[in-house]
Amino acid sequence: MSLTADFVALLGIERVKTHPLERHVYSRDGGISLGPVEVVVHPETTEEVVDVVQIARRHGFPLVPRGAGTGLAGGAVPTQPAVVVALTRMNQIHEIDVASRTAWVGPGVINVELSQHTARYGLHYAPDPSSQAACTIGGNVATNAGGPHCLADGTTVVHILGMELVTAEGEVLILGGAAPDPPGLDLRGIVVGSEGTFGIVTRVLVRLSEDAPATRTMLLAFGDTAGAAATVSDTIAEGVIPAALEIMDRLIVRAVENFVQAGFPLDAAAVLLAEVSGHPVAVAAEVDLIADLAARHGASSVRVAADEAEAALWWKGRKAAFGAVAQMAPDYYLHDTVVPRSRLVEVLQTVYEIADRNDLMVMNVFHAGDGNLHPIMAFDAEEPGTMARVKTAADAIVAASVAAGGSLSGEHGIGLEKRDLMKTVFSPVDLDAQARLREAFDPAGVMNPDKILPTGSRCLDYGRPAAAPVVS
Amino acid sequence: MSLTADFVALLGIERVKTHPLERHVYSRDGGISLGPVEVVVHPETTEEVVDVVQIARRHGFPLVPRGAGTGLAGGAVPTQPAVVVALTRMNQIHEIDVASRTAWVGPGVINVELSQHTARYGLHYAPDPSSQAACTIGGNVATNAGGPHCLADGTTVVHILGMELVTAEGEVLILGGAAPDPPGLDLRGIVVGSEGTFGIVTRVLVRLSEDAPATRTMLLAFGDTAGAAATVSDTIAEGVIPAALEIMDRLIVRAVENFVQAGFPLDAAAVLLAEVSGHPVAVAAEVDLIADLAARHGASSVRVAADEAEAALWWKGRKAAFGAVAQMAPDYYLHDTVVPRSRLVEVLQTVYEIADRNDLMVMNVFHAGDGNLHPIMAFDAEEPGTMARVKTAADAIVAASVAAGGSLSGEHGIGLEKRDLMKTVFSPVDLDAQARLREAFDPAGVMNPDKILPTGSRCLDYGRPAAAPVVS
Repeated sequence: MSLTADFVALLGIERVKTHPLERHVYSRDGGISLGPVEVVVHPETTEEVVDVVQIARRHGFPLVPRGAGTGLAGGAVPTQPAVVVALTRMNQIHEIDVASRTAWVGPGVINVELSQHTARYGLHYAPDPSSQAACTIGGNVATNAGGPHCLADGTTVVHILGMELVTAEGEVLILGGAAPDPPGLDLRGIVVGSEGTFGIVTRVLVRLSEDAPATRTMLLAFGDTAGAAATVSDTIAEGVIPAALEIMDRLIVRAVENFVQAGFPLDAAAVLLAEVSGHPVAVAAEVDLIADLAARHGASSVRVAADEAEAALWWKGRKAAFGAVAQMAPDYYLHDTVVPRSRLVEVLQTVYEIADRNDLMVMNVFHAGDGNLHPIMAFDAEEPGTMARVKTAADAIVAASVAAGGSLSGEHGIGLEKRDLMKTVFSPVDLDAQARLREAFDPAGVMNPDKILPTGSRCLDYGRPAAAPVVS
Repeated sequence: MSLTADFVALLGIERVKTHPLERHVYSRDGGISLGPVEVVVHPETTEEVVDVVQIARRHGFPLVPRGAGTGLAGGAVPTQPAVVVALTRMNQIHEIDVASRTAWVGPGVINVELSQHTARYGLHYAPDPSSQAACTIGGNVATNAGGPHCLADGTTVVHILGMELVTAEGEVLILGGAAPDPPGLDLRGIVVGSEGTFGIVTRVLVRLSEDAPATRTMLLAFGDTAGAAATVSDTIAEGVIPAALEIMDRLIVRAVENFVQAGFPLDAAAVLLAEVSGHPVAVAAEVDLIADLAARHGASSVRVAADEAEAALWWKGRKAAFGAVAQMAPDYYLHDTVVPRSRLVEVLQTVYEIADRNDLMVMNVFHAGDGNLHPIMAFDAEEPGTMARVKTAADAIVAASVAAGGSLSGEHGIGLEKRDLMKTVFSPVDLDAQARLREAFDPAGVMNPDKILPTGSRCLDYGRPAAAPVVS
């Protein structure tokens, strides 16, 4: 039987997509890469995923797992004709253990829906990417996703206690678990952030966090970005780790205000959105401290949200930033790099210069507390020569971040977009070690091939034949 | 040349130990296992470690890296004639970056000496095993060591940002790094806790933590263990994570008091040592909260340390617990399991019953906040039949912890002691995945062989010859 016929026999015709239009929809994510899709399948159980893997292998096709497709780095975009395994139907919340604050969930559960579901118990799932209304827990695991509230709470890897993984051989592994400190090698930690290259995650054991007894949200306006950044650094230097510390520059504040009317000050060069949470007494003390530091760094206004509604509106403004940009230009390209907090202002200045030099408009909205920059270039891709300038600027921004002691990627993953830049931060032996590790799980290289590691990473040979070079 | 001659040519005679007495010293750790040592070498540089690995390989000997030998699970005890690589001379603090709060240190640096050295900058290294006055950072990395203050701060893996690793092939890898979120696969996380089975760590990049602006230490006495445990659970349920929450039962309190005169109440069935730290206002509020909860759970006394000297004395008492036991009986055996906080009291009761049934004295001192039990059996190994009863009781305690939803090991590692118990918590495919991972780094199985994974873990074959069965 043909590949498609085998899948139809397994899943039924409604869960196997082969029409060119359907395949096109699954050929890209939220970023700018595009790839060839052979067929899209929608399994609903672990057993079906095992069968899907075996059918794909039998017919010689690689597999690309996919959540909601909100990724920006091409992690779920195939590079060779592939079976795209859409996990969005595996969206059950299987089991919630309120006493131990854990839940087993399907990879297709939407991030914000998990927290909405557990709100009745006073619990929530902490990592909150800006795409949380659409992105899935499985996608969050694949990219080790972050979010504004990961400053105090840590990124996805801190909140994933275990998972069920279907390997390239169709084995079903249980990695990690609910026990407080599972013994043995930390395979769970390796799989989080591996972008589907170790297998397909079919169930996830998440840690749920208790809702804080008190939360205050502050909106602080500054005449320059340096004042906002210094307030962030000094707050953390005082030993206070707020729940979130987000900075928006003038252009993005205007774009957002125009889009959602969040009440942001249009005359500010930078706006700092700060949230503190915890014990009510500590929260009150921390609000005072941040207000003092902001005043010392020349804040032109310091506001504390009067109620939950106002705080929610400010957060809506922050999280709508990318939507706001989409209203301003036909296309946009969102970067994701990390720099040491102490060099934020300097690297931001470089980002503005790079944009100027390439005749591009750049807006900045970023997780200031952990130095995670998100410069956004807005442009019209139809205009001749624009894409080349966007690419030049992107590479220059990454290089500037790395040169400042930073990192390639904060939370969006490596995917295709930054794969070839891995060589700028890893030596050949380091990349080879990563490639060996991956090969231990997927010797044939069929699980989301060509992602994360650049071509030729497997440079040394331990007496076994080297993996066939990947096609990219 | 012979193995020894090659080592002497490389390191000089003073750094190569072959005398039977010297080899005997390195044939065991702080636990009860004993193994064969061919030779002990003391390299001082990464280059020397590379040469040591190559010489050992050439002569067909496996390598066992070793820090201070304070381990309790046999992780540094050879199972076959081996080259023991003592890393205690690699004890330089290479570089401290005060602004980014990191330091590159040698694996032989003693835990407490690192914090003493960085105190001048208001910084410390957070994980504080009870053996911190002797144990090394390298050993802490090998076992993913914990300590009382890991409740709020996390275990070793949270504080290790990167490392230099010499592999079985003599490659030098840099894993992780100072950048806020290094891209790529998390090899750093895999190596922490791998007990030297991936290679020899020759430099470690540690995260330094800022000293808290305020700290208060509390000593609470209870008429039963349940009251102490309930105070711990309720404190955490209130959203407060103290810096440390340690419980000691009646027998250990008496042993300690007899040993160091820490001022512990001799009439209490259980003593809770609680420490809160952070912003002064929050600390004061948290002290009040814990005192209230303790009173509600029947505390017979609640004391707050009057000054740093009193707090230090209480901590000395807590950390001297194992020394105190050594005064009471010629031998002791210290367990290390983890149970969910909600089942602490029940599992403790089972531990007392197991000790009774096996005619052994048991004392308990443990990290209550994260459910990490440390029952200590004190006995005289010379007494016929005793060791068999100790072993029976140990296995029963581990089984009871796992049955309650807990884990084999909290912070001491798997080593030899719990290697065969790994089968009780991992399925054959799970163990095979761990074995594959290890094989990717050490295909010949020469790096601390026979540790962590039980014999026959590599049960499946992916078309490559299976690893030769390990000898145990």
